[in-house]
Amino acid sequence: MDISNLQSNWHLNIESDQQKGAEVPAFQKEWNGERHPLPEPDFDSFTGIDLVHAILTRRSERKFLEQAISLTELGWLLFATQGIHETTPRGSRRTSPSAGARHPFETYIAVFHVEGLDEGIYLYRPYEHELLLVSRPENLREQCREALNGQGWDAPVIFLWTAVPYRTHWRYPGRMPKLVALDAGHLCQNLYLACAAIDGGTCAIGAYDQEKCDALLGVDGETELMVYGAPVGKV
Amino acid sequence: MDISNLQSNWHLNIESDQQKGAEVPAFQKEWNGERHPLPEPDFDSFTGIDLVHAILTRRSERKFLEQAISLTELGWLLFATQGIHETTPRGSRRTSPSAGARHPFETYIAVFHVEGLDEGIYLYRPYEHELLLVSRPENLREQCREALNGQGWDAPVIFLWTAVPYRTHWRYPGRMPKLVALDAGHLCQNLYLACAAIDGGTCAIGAYDQEKCDALLGVDGETELMVYGAPVGKV
Repeated sequence: MDISNLQSNWHLNIESDQQKGAEVPAFQKEWNGERHPLPEPDFDSFTGIDLVHAILTRRSERKFLEQAISLTELGWLLFATQGIHETTPRGSRRTSPSAGARHPFETYIAVFHVEGLDEGIYLYRPYEHELLLVSRPENLREQCREALNGQGWDAPVIFLWTAVPYRTHWRYPGRMPKLVALDAGHLCQNLYLACAAIDGGTCAIGAYDQEKCDALLGVDGETELMVYGAPVGKV
Repeated sequence: MDISNLQSNWHLNIESDQQKGAEVPAFQKEWNGERHPLPEPDFDSFTGIDLVHAILTRRSERKFLEQAISLTELGWLLFATQGIHETTPRGSRRTSPSAGARHPFETYIAVFHVEGLDEGIYLYRPYEHELLLVSRPENLREQCREALNGQGWDAPVIFLWTAVPYRTHWRYPGRMPKLVALDAGHLCQNLYLACAAIDGGTCAIGAYDQEKCDALLGVDGETELMVYGAPVGKV
């Protein structure tokens, strides 16, 4: 049992690329897909759920109603996980925290049943709060099922988070995988709770097929790789 | 840059100790310190914060008021991060999710200014919703500051989470450190949000001194080791 990747090794004082003067990595992936704006981030319609109640009643949901998610609801879930409050010269402040505000993630969604969006893979752009079309694979449901080892449970939408590890490594070379995983836990917990505001639910997926997921998302598995997933639907 | 600890390797089908028939590890650490019951988990007094508002206004807080945390507030924060809804033969369902419901964590708190508790290190027992005294080190504030690399910011209470890696390894030997870190992110995000219900705030600490933290908590750094921390106070 190798526990080294759980240990802090800050005492080693490993010099980072940031300290060496390397350029800060891009905060967001370059992509030129068809643009799908999301409704303006005004989430008043989702208020009315008490925070304490949401935390106390959190559970993992694997069965979803055959009901679409609206674009407004999807926008809320995306903002609740990666939405930007404030941009700063060194990055952004978001709804979920990230070590050194590095925010190493890209959020992809596999869309099956979202009002106003055709089936396909989309990429969320937090800086623009919009979606870009990535691809419309044949048999997307079947491909997702295989890539997620049979999980995904006929959800109307599946969140698929990749990491761009260098964003975090640039500043924290010592324990990058641990910090990225901690940050992925933060945003996924926000998704669990945010689902309560749309009568929805989710269940995080750590047991996925790395190669199939990376291929499905069109990422190289090195500079960018899938790290976590979560199907969402009404419950 | 080694990304292997971010990758899923489920395709390797590594046989787990669970599959080999090994006994399920204890769900909670054995400890016999002085008992400090927490108020019954009835959190009605913390309601009134909207979930959407809490998510949208989340930020990291590093400055705290010189004001105590009450025992009821502390009980809420502990329950919100590791509280048990339901026990099952294979473990427990909690306010924050864990891969395979393994819940590999022990929650320690360094208490400085909590009504009804003397300064010291305490261990939270989620099954009993109580605290056990671990130790009353001399110069606890100074020791925390050193162990947390100068962080901790004069908080009235500091959460210090250890992991018992074997709890997760028993079932998921393939990528235990990643799964434990994801789970630590889940519970820490609940702490960020739960703080909103007590006019409080927090800021997660990944940059800590492993040896000093483990020594302070009295854990061996192998079967149990510090993985994440978070000072909490009123803001």
